[in-house]
Amino acid sequence: MTGQPFAALVDWGTSNLRLWLTDSHGEIIAERQSAEGMGTLERDAYPAVLEGHLSALAAPSDLPVVVAGMAGARTGWKEAPYVETPAPLIGLFQHAVRPEGASRTVYILPGVCQRAGGAYDVMRGEETQLAGALEQGLDTALFCLPGTHSKWALVEGGHVRRFSTVMTGELFQLISRQSILRLSVPEESDAEADPEIFDAAVSQALQPGFALTASLFSIRAEGLLSSGEKMNAAARLSGMLIGAEVAAIRDDLVRYGKAYIIGTGKLTRLYARAIGIAGGEAVMLDGGLLVRRGLLASALSLFDHEFKD
Amino acid sequence: MTGQPFAALVDWGTSNLRLWLTDSHGEIIAERQSAEGMGTLERDAYPAVLEGHLSALAAPSDLPVVVAGMAGARTGWKEAPYVETPAPLIGLFQHAVRPEGASRTVYILPGVCQRAGGAYDVMRGEETQLAGALEQGLDTALFCLPGTHSKWALVEGGHVRRFSTVMTGELFQLISRQSILRLSVPEESDAEADPEIFDAAVSQALQPGFALTASLFSIRAEGLLSSGEKMNAAARLSGMLIGAEVAAIRDDLVRYGKAYIIGTGKLTRLYARAIGIAGGEAVMLDGGLLVRRGLLASALSLFDHEFKD
Repeated sequence: MTGQPFAALVDWGTSNLRLWLTDSHGEIIAERQSAEGMGTLERDAYPAVLEGHLSALAAPSDLPVVVAGMAGARTGWKEAPYVETPAPLIGLFQHAVRPEGASRTVYILPGVCQRAGGAYDVMRGEETQLAGALEQGLDTALFCLPGTHSKWALVEGGHVRRFSTVMTGELFQLISRQSILRLSVPEESDAEADPEIFDAAVSQALQPGFALTASLFSIRAEGLLSSGEKMNAAARLSGMLIGAEVAAIRDDLVRYGKAYIIGTGKLTRLYARAIGIAGGEAVMLDGGLLVRRGLLASALSLFDHEFKD
Repeated sequence: MTGQPFAALVDWGTSNLRLWLTDSHGEIIAERQSAEGMGTLERDAYPAVLEGHLSALAAPSDLPVVVAGMAGARTGWKEAPYVETPAPLIGLFQHAVRPEGASRTVYILPGVCQRAGGAYDVMRGEETQLAGALEQGLDTALFCLPGTHSKWALVEGGHVRRFSTVMTGELFQLISRQSILRLSVPEESDAEADPEIFDAAVSQALQPGFALTASLFSIRAEGLLSSGEKMNAAARLSGMLIGAEVAAIRDDLVRYGKAYIIGTGKLTRLYARAIGIAGGEAVMLDGGLLVRRGLLASALSLFDHEFKD
């Protein structure tokens, strides 16, 4: 049993948008998904796209909306300036902005940025997933968010203390499809098909002194020098890249003992293997559920005075 | 004063060929250069291309030829199997092969491969430059050969002991032109224009625990977060990549104190800076001269009994 629609919650990323109507407990009443991501939209197109999805779900005309993600980028609907680390996840809503052109109450949540020590970094959308994890009690933990640009975030006492974006997924695509290694990595290859090769490459990348750029070409050379069956080069490349990524946060992994992986599918399973090889425990969390929880927490703070206590 | 043509020396790479007629002392009588590299040629096209260049230089019809480089690859004119490390540079000619279809004496020199410890690697052409360096007395030294795929080679007692191919140049192109960082690196940017930024990035990459893939995105994020003048992102990216490459051979650099850079132009100057920052001395060598010396040494062993002493 779900109750009355309380708000529309929107995860509006670069490539996709996901929208949920939920009640005040976060139960889903209806949902939509589309490829109308920030990357495809002009600034003045946002209100009509949003209203189109809301009317398709017969949402009340005064239902308020909370948005997370790239819709709040400088090149999105309206810029929601970044909150700087250490960034309190509980208070994101206080920095939300109200975009122009909306015929109803709409808030866009801010992203988080990091300048400390010259380790510049930005996130938009992931902070709302982290806020969702906070809602389920994870106020101090190491998080891994795999993707084209994966992110690792250290949350302490409900604050994003520091984080790092790693271009592993994009590098895998560029190297396997466009560099000389494309000659060794078949188009349809599956990095998960040879766990032993993947695991060995992760172990190699975790060795002290491992040099990624000086090791990549060995994948091509091994193919040239071996006369027998072909090694699964995709598994090896993926293992080297994910292993190098895990090596970079290994101190945190040792300290916390576990990493919470936010996501779904094959990529998260590869990260879980790599975290295990590095001596950590991997715990899987559902990214869609977390972003809804984070959005709902902000919606409750922004819109509701009845349910808050 | 040059003497009679003694041999035609050919550096036949993937993208280009360079051909010299020299006397038995290596003095250049005439030379040719063209884009008819291995990458553009079918196997049966090689004899006509070679004869075309030789007849343009009015070379005697019985003048012998020695070739180094990718013409000896499996996909070239005729495969000259690799000599495995530790590979004696003085005896490369003993492993030369004679290709089909030539109307004169033609030898193609072998490349060098490495299998030791699973550090698979291959070179074709560079070994002949190293043989040329040996001719000028460098029988024990660390060499750096910058390029799309740069190589570092440790030569001890006239043998290629071990070597490593690093995809720095290709990665720079892919990352700066096709990854998300393309938005931060202008097309026409010059990594040499901001030596301070390049040097700082090299120093960063030389720090213990530097993680390249976890650091690249900071270039994009810094651009997003800085309101003022744009940083030279090309200098930063280049410094990180070359710095990571030098970090991987730093132990050798410390042991030998210097690295001999084989090449010309801007890229060699950037490598020289990075080697200096890592505490080594960089000495520049002319790659064209070295390959001729290496080819001539093989030609003298293969063809000549009068001039040898």
